[in-house]
Amino acid sequence: MLDTVRKYIAQNQLFEELQNLLLAVSGGVDSVVLVDILHRFQSYSLSIAHCNFQLRGKESDEDETFVANLAREYQLPLFVKKFDTQEFASKNKLSIQVAARQLRYAWFDEILLSQQIPLLVTAHHQNDNIETVIYNLAKGTGIAGLHGILPKNGNIVRPLLCVSKEEILQYASANQLVWREDSSNESDKYSRNLIRHHIIPILKQLNPKLENTFQENTEKIHAVENIFKNVVNEFKNRVLNEINAICYLDIEVIRKESENQIKLYEILKDFGFNYSQIKQIINTLDSEAGKLFTSHTHTLVKDRKHLVLAPIQAKNEAIKFEKKSPIVTHHNFTLELYIFSKSPDFQFSTDANIAYLDFDKLSENLTVRNFEHGDEFCPLGMKGKKKKLTDFLNDLKIPLNLKNQVLLLLSDKQIAWVIGHRIDDRFKITEKTQTVLEVRYMIKQQS
Amino acid sequence: MLDTVRKYIAQNQLFEELQNLLLAVSGGVDSVVLVDILHRFQSYSLSIAHCNFQLRGKESDEDETFVANLAREYQLPLFVKKFDTQEFASKNKLSIQVAARQLRYAWFDEILLSQQIPLLVTAHHQNDNIETVIYNLAKGTGIAGLHGILPKNGNIVRPLLCVSKEEILQYASANQLVWREDSSNESDKYSRNLIRHHIIPILKQLNPKLENTFQENTEKIHAVENIFKNVVNEFKNRVLNEINAICYLDIEVIRKESENQIKLYEILKDFGFNYSQIKQIINTLDSEAGKLFTSHTHTLVKDRKHLVLAPIQAKNEAIKFEKKSPIVTHHNFTLELYIFSKSPDFQFSTDANIAYLDFDKLSENLTVRNFEHGDEFCPLGMKGKKKKLTDFLNDLKIPLNLKNQVLLLLSDKQIAWVIGHRIDDRFKITEKTQTVLEVRYMIKQQS
Repeated sequence: MLDTVRKYIAQNQLFEELQNLLLAVSGGVDSVVLVDILHRFQSYSLSIAHCNFQLRGKESDEDETFVANLAREYQLPLFVKKFDTQEFASKNKLSIQVAARQLRYAWFDEILLSQQIPLLVTAHHQNDNIETVIYNLAKGTGIAGLHGILPKNGNIVRPLLCVSKEEILQYASANQLVWREDSSNESDKYSRNLIRHHIIPILKQLNPKLENTFQENTEKIHAVENIFKNVVNEFKNRVLNEINAICYLDIEVIRKESENQIKLYEILKDFGFNYSQIKQIINTLDSEAGKLFTSHTHTLVKDRKHLVLAPIQAKNEAIKFEKKSPIVTHHNFTLELYIFSKSPDFQFSTDANIAYLDFDKLSENLTVRNFEHGDEFCPLGMKGKKKKLTDFLNDLKIPLNLKNQVLLLLSDKQIAWVIGHRIDDRFKITEKTQTVLEVRYMIKQQS
Repeated sequence: MLDTVRKYIAQNQLFEELQNLLLAVSGGVDSVVLVDILHRFQSYSLSIAHCNFQLRGKESDEDETFVANLAREYQLPLFVKKFDTQEFASKNKLSIQVAARQLRYAWFDEILLSQQIPLLVTAHHQNDNIETVIYNLAKGTGIAGLHGILPKNGNIVRPLLCVSKEEILQYASANQLVWREDSSNESDKYSRNLIRHHIIPILKQLNPKLENTFQENTEKIHAVENIFKNVVNEFKNRVLNEINAICYLDIEVIRKESENQIKLYEILKDFGFNYSQIKQIINTLDSEAGKLFTSHTHTLVKDRKHLVLAPIQAKNEAIKFEKKSPIVTHHNFTLELYIFSKSPDFQFSTDANIAYLDFDKLSENLTVRNFEHGDEFCPLGMKGKKKKLTDFLNDLKIPLNLKNQVLLLLSDKQIAWVIGHRIDDRFKITEKTQTVLEVRYMIKQQS
């Protein structure tokens, strides 16, 4: 088994000679074997980290003591932390499993950073991998869920993914290692156990070499996944254009693309859309503009030539400020205000994000707020006629999901500027204007 | 359920209105429901085909009678055939399952052809699909095994893939249909039953909507597979060059390709090579030329600039013929022989597949046979010195796996021509030559 692991480390370039490694050790047989094997290689500088989640009272503390002794025995630096997992979970409304995972990895990251250790090593093995694949298949997955657990993922490496649970147990007993039974393994215990005890044994009846077969399966599938991701990225570059946090996806490009459904899904799932929504979106490509789709975080409208994808923003609170303020800041945007006398050679900028208003006609206090149902104004150039703002925006072909994000500058209750689009006729610069208020709107790039 | 199936047929364009369809009917609940649903649609012209594999004695005959009655009831044309499956299996050294499958599909194809029916319809449903995916995963698979059963594959369509076994049973009982329990379903019964009765129920505990989830899984995975296949085809066009049934794969192209291992596997698995061989081949790309890999049907040699892939050919029997024969034919090649007096303006062709020999120096009977260990000859242009043929071919850098395929023309026991490469000095045309034997070698393209 030592050879198998050594080879696997080399082939997958998991880590280099003399590297500092932090081993996640629960005290169970997997992690005890991990420590023993890597220690035996004498090629790395090892440290041990143990989380005490305090979920099983005395047992949890005994686990901690056990790992402390283990570290002493192998003469390795030890990091231990006690977590109030229960409290963290209920405070953040998380399941115990998710809470433990968050606490664990946040703390591991802390150690890696403070100790300047580049890699965390976990003891996941072939059977963990099989369980994960079966679990993902049952719960629903695309290609991504089928590669199972990866040997290297970010700063986490798993050198035991090449050996089975059986081999680990054999190694432990051949080397007279001692370990803690059922030590903390909080991840989805019920489902895991169902798969481990009821499904894997049947699969092993079908194929006694199941573990090796799965390793090859997942290797192949991961390679296909990488190819798929490249294809999707290339498509994304062609189809998607982002302007001020709004994404525009070119419908003509989508329409011509082969296998466009899965590719679009791969792009839009990151914005919270599910597969059946993507099917509907694809079906809507040839129909009239205006159809709206919503995820938890984003809206998507099938517009004329584009799918328009916008983050759902909490309505901006109305911001009130004096018209003499030099600057107004908000987490989404900034307004700069300049007051000057109108000179005879006064020139308008054509920038849609700059407005020139008659300073004296404006009230002392101005407001910026979002578009609201029922808003009306007198668009410049329409002879002072009133128009519903919603119709005005429709005429401009503003997609449904961007309409709600349109910002207005108000003087008292009158709209003075539909920001980025049109000023109100009543506040325009005329021959009689003496003082000009120039307002510059700048959006903040969201990172 | 009728609506679900109708929609599924439309969405997947399984078949058109008024089309002739041949339904494969075992008499089990799935196929009985299939008949009832498609009959209810009244949009197709249906026929029924039933195989009696005679594997379960009286029961098999009762199945046949049942299906005959069913056809009468629905007033559909019926095709029935009795097979001696046992005999066919033992004669062709096949498992009963494989034998039954071969017999079934061969016969179905016959009916489709003779009756001019374009499509065969089978009653596979969502649970068959899940079982297939699990089975493939357990037995080892790449991406191809994970799409499960396809709704349309060649001339076979499966309109019930959108419904679960449970729904089929509900439909059958709601419509008071009658069916045969455990009617003939020969495919890998033992494994299927393990999965059906021991794995699926657990998976359904994990996800009560397992069937729908799997349908979505497999749809997504099939789309990724299609993308992957396109990428591989594009790679294949760049990397592989076929000349006279020998494939040359450009090592430099392979080396530069991302994810080359899985792509090469996808190409070479069709020639019988397995995944771990591909790994070895990839590892050998930078090493010395000459490494040989063998599948059941092909050999592959890592040559200097290419991987050279050749079919394993049964050694050609030595063919004897008179030197006055005008033509010699073999299933792999043809030799044409021309005898003429040497004229003063005699010109050699430079075609390597044409040899000019001194007719009078040749024995009456010539032989063509493959290269054999120990062969020697006097290559033209080497002052009559003898040379081992193996060394000669090495000097020409003939890849290992093509050496055995080199053909020789012999006069008695002497090599007169290493076909395609060099004639023997002893048989060359000299000033004294009076009569020329021109031999033209032509390979037959294998289809």
